[in-house]
Amino acid sequence: MADEVVLLDYWLSPFGMRLRIALALKGIKYEHKEEDLTNKSPLLLQSNPVHKKIPVLIHNGKPVCESVVALQYIDEVWNDTAPLLPSDPYLKSQARFWADFVDKKIYGYGKALWTAKGEELEAVQKDHLDCIKLLEGELGDKPFFGGETIGLLDVTLLPFASWFSVYEKFGNLSLEAACPKFIAWLKRCFLIQSVSESLPAAEKLYDYVVQMKKKLGTE
Amino acid sequence: MADEVVLLDYWLSPFGMRLRIALALKGIKYEHKEEDLTNKSPLLLQSNPVHKKIPVLIHNGKPVCESVVALQYIDEVWNDTAPLLPSDPYLKSQARFWADFVDKKIYGYGKALWTAKGEELEAVQKDHLDCIKLLEGELGDKPFFGGETIGLLDVTLLPFASWFSVYEKFGNLSLEAACPKFIAWLKRCFLIQSVSESLPAAEKLYDYVVQMKKKLGTE
Repeated sequence: MADEVVLLDYWLSPFGMRLRIALALKGIKYEHKEEDLTNKSPLLLQSNPVHKKIPVLIHNGKPVCESVVALQYIDEVWNDTAPLLPSDPYLKSQARFWADFVDKKIYGYGKALWTAKGEELEAVQKDHLDCIKLLEGELGDKPFFGGETIGLLDVTLLPFASWFSVYEKFGNLSLEAACPKFIAWLKRCFLIQSVSESLPAAEKLYDYVVQMKKKLGTE
Repeated sequence: MADEVVLLDYWLSPFGMRLRIALALKGIKYEHKEEDLTNKSPLLLQSNPVHKKIPVLIHNGKPVCESVVALQYIDEVWNDTAPLLPSDPYLKSQARFWADFVDKKIYGYGKALWTAKGEELEAVQKDHLDCIKLLEGELGDKPFFGGETIGLLDVTLLPFASWFSVYEKFGNLSLEAACPKFIAWLKRCFLIQSVSESLPAAEKLYDYVVQMKKKLGTE
């Protein structure tokens, strides 16, 4: 039986982008179903009754929810190409630790940016820079977090990184000056077609943020 | 070389309890180092520079932080006895999904209990009961979440479950009446020596909560 793979997704979701990148890296054909998050489909509600959130990967009718869980599932099922996790248990634990760090620390930054101003914005920016510097330390001199190729942490982090040019415009912040190694990593990733084709253009994200800030009255 | 295993821990920590249970289930000898969380040791700060939190598992000098990451590490390194995760990728993804659910949903309940009163307490209780019922649904008719034996989700959840008798005393709540299958699971787990010996006695937890509530002025 050929694999039937469906991705319930929303274009703006960094969590959805992760799965798009992983599926593209592994060359897995899938049906992409864009969700209207203001009117969620019965398939989404039935596939993720606990959180009712995208993304959901549905493989041969069975749903896998939560993006880092789904990334590991993809890596274990399609294990013959583009491995996301190393086989060594210690290296694997470190990739999982940092993927969890991204979820706990980096995601919040984007959210704070919608609403923060003045001193609050400065505090958020400082915290964010500290996090990026920690990640730079973890990258070290490797081309990718996964080593010679893209791994779990790269895929987990990239969708947020694609927002950085938007953050810089709003936050009066130059990540390139503060974290050159990190930006070099980001540029290196964007040379990979599976990555660049899986993420929306920076201009599209920027326009969205402008609209959101107008709506929230924080422009 | 014999394995050198050290656990940096604090007796009250549900996250530390998880590792104690897993190490006991697998019969791994280790050195237990109790931390003073008001004056963290240089070893803790050096082993977990990012979060500076217990528990940390140190295996042959290499630290693994974040309890669910460490549980998976333990399972992968000591894979010849008491497996915590099944080999099937889908079943594995479901265990990881629910372990993540416990971290996101169940942990908050204990925190809210320190401070909530009246209607707020009622809302927290209702939400908590809903979560336990979702978990009961996942348990189904299996003896353990892991199937015939204790698995990742059992180990992740058990330390919180050991608090339930304390919650019941404070919360005027009978989980046994509302969620009999869940309580039967809990009792089944406590018959396993590796579990019961890894968790503090309910009376000790209760005394601690009484002290905390006095301190916070919410008794």
